[in-house]
Amino acid sequence: MIDGPYLLFLGDAPDALAAKVAQGIRDWRPEASVGQFRMAGCAADMGLPDMTLAEAAAAGARTLVVGVANRGGVISPAWIEVLRAAMEHGLDLASGLHNLLRDEPELMATAMATGRGLHDVRVPETRYPIANGRRRRGRRCLAVGTDCSVGKMYTALAMDREMRGRGMKSTFRATGQTGILITGGGVPLDAVVADFMAGSIEWLTPDNDPDHWDLIEGQGSLFHASYSGVTLALIHGGQPDALILCHEPTRTHMRGLPDYPPPSLEALRDLALATARIVNPEVRVAGISINTAGLAAAEAEDYLASIEQLMGLPTVDPFRTGAGRLVDALT
Amino acid sequence: MIDGPYLLFLGDAPDALAAKVAQGIRDWRPEASVGQFRMAGCAADMGLPDMTLAEAAAAGARTLVVGVANRGGVISPAWIEVLRAAMEHGLDLASGLHNLLRDEPELMATAMATGRGLHDVRVPETRYPIANGRRRRGRRCLAVGTDCSVGKMYTALAMDREMRGRGMKSTFRATGQTGILITGGGVPLDAVVADFMAGSIEWLTPDNDPDHWDLIEGQGSLFHASYSGVTLALIHGGQPDALILCHEPTRTHMRGLPDYPPPSLEALRDLALATARIVNPEVRVAGISINTAGLAAAEAEDYLASIEQLMGLPTVDPFRTGAGRLVDALT
Repeated sequence: MIDGPYLLFLGDAPDALAAKVAQGIRDWRPEASVGQFRMAGCAADMGLPDMTLAEAAAAGARTLVVGVANRGGVISPAWIEVLRAAMEHGLDLASGLHNLLRDEPELMATAMATGRGLHDVRVPETRYPIANGRRRRGRRCLAVGTDCSVGKMYTALAMDREMRGRGMKSTFRATGQTGILITGGGVPLDAVVADFMAGSIEWLTPDNDPDHWDLIEGQGSLFHASYSGVTLALIHGGQPDALILCHEPTRTHMRGLPDYPPPSLEALRDLALATARIVNPEVRVAGISINTAGLAAAEAEDYLASIEQLMGLPTVDPFRTGAGRLVDALT
Repeated sequence: MIDGPYLLFLGDAPDALAAKVAQGIRDWRPEASVGQFRMAGCAADMGLPDMTLAEAAAAGARTLVVGVANRGGVISPAWIEVLRAAMEHGLDLASGLHNLLRDEPELMATAMATGRGLHDVRVPETRYPIANGRRRRGRRCLAVGTDCSVGKMYTALAMDREMRGRGMKSTFRATGQTGILITGGGVPLDAVVADFMAGSIEWLTPDNDPDHWDLIEGQGSLFHASYSGVTLALIHGGQPDALILCHEPTRTHMRGLPDYPPPSLEALRDLALATARIVNPEVRVAGISINTAGLAAAEAEDYLASIEQLMGLPTVDPFRTGAGRLVDALT
């Protein structure tokens, strides 16, 4: 686990998109951060107080989270200087960058000297068990997609927020880098060794109260040739009671696979149920989440209604309509 | 790749079963080994010439292959002495042990001093790509099982041998430790990082002649909660044209999962086809391979006939009946 609260490091982000990890933390865990740290030229703004490292430490920040993508795959000398100083002010560092903090000799040396932690959330920090397939107490909901990057994390976070707003017991379970930085913990599933994938998800979603819901962040797609094995491990390790089907209607081919058209929602429903029933015969599809960002408002409304009729399931865009109907469908 | 020919190290194997890796190499690649090395107390015998290290080196051996399981997870001092001496006689070492050769300081020091190689086949030695899903030339056959350890490797090896005996172009593609030691190369799929599983299998089964068959070693089972993700990555990376269904009829529950009954062959057929069609719409089930070791001869014959009638597919036990009918069914 990454200790909070955070100071969000926005670096010299050239635009808001470069700081999308910080934006995710800001949107979904507004209480998690005491402030933001921006360098000269930073064009992103989370609307948090700008703080020096000393101010952040005084305000109680425990970890500086790198909330910005680095340019060209290099952690610049200007960043290194700030990151080292943060450790000297008593903060740990956390990052989801492809370039690992631990591979930077200056950061490693400062971490050793100051005793601060370096959390590279792309790398598993836990020795996971082999999955045992035993049924666990508590309830679990998993978002599965027709493709990668169709809104699975957003859907699970929106459902978790809705459930907590209603006073229900729920936990968002992160399985990717951004989700881990948002919540402070989770499993970086794409970096887990094959034999331990399903076991890592059992570990992430343990026995719980009978009325507690884990909202598990989905990964990949059963229909994505590059990552389908990760998705199936997530289904079998997660033992979902409920599935939410996620889809992006304007996509013309699977992400990164120009020869592969996306599957229909019916095909996703059928294959997801067939695989999930192996570990939980009671599993059902509870609802559908559509990312309609590519459609105009009227088009989106028509599309949601047509899918709802076609599939006979509550169909929402959690960004436009909220996730309330998906939560209703769980209970 | 591991250089041949081999000297098979049987150590102090307490019984034949402890030397099953050596037995696999002896059975499937009899030409691969110049001899065997046995220590005091060894109860296994591959029927190969017993050789000293000097004799093996003189006979052309390039690699000593550890063909025996170590007791209690410890590479004993007596073994270490032989393994070091082998390197001093010019041999590389190859092992599929859980304890890695490279983790033994004395072996590492000798390897550095002599310039010999240490092949721990449980650890990937290659940086695999992300799968791209593109169709490749050549044909591919994958064995899929109702469970782990039902004869998938045996089936693929038997088919490869049959095809080569007929003068067909074929290659057995190893995806596990024993298969890699038998053939000298392959992908230790269970140790590959999640994101690269399917890509490692694309790498293993590249473009080939249109009439060449890859016989891909299966792993796990789509129905095995612990390892199903590995199996799906193998199906999607392997792009099989033909599937062979593998089954062991006396098994009462999934291996290691007492709560899970094995699926029917019909269920395996349906789910394997549904997933394999995502990457190759032309894929078909060509035949069925049953491990009838737990049945008497007459029972086995009846069982094979009943499955053949039920499923409408050529059904064999390659150990009892040969793999000829499976090969017939491919062409």
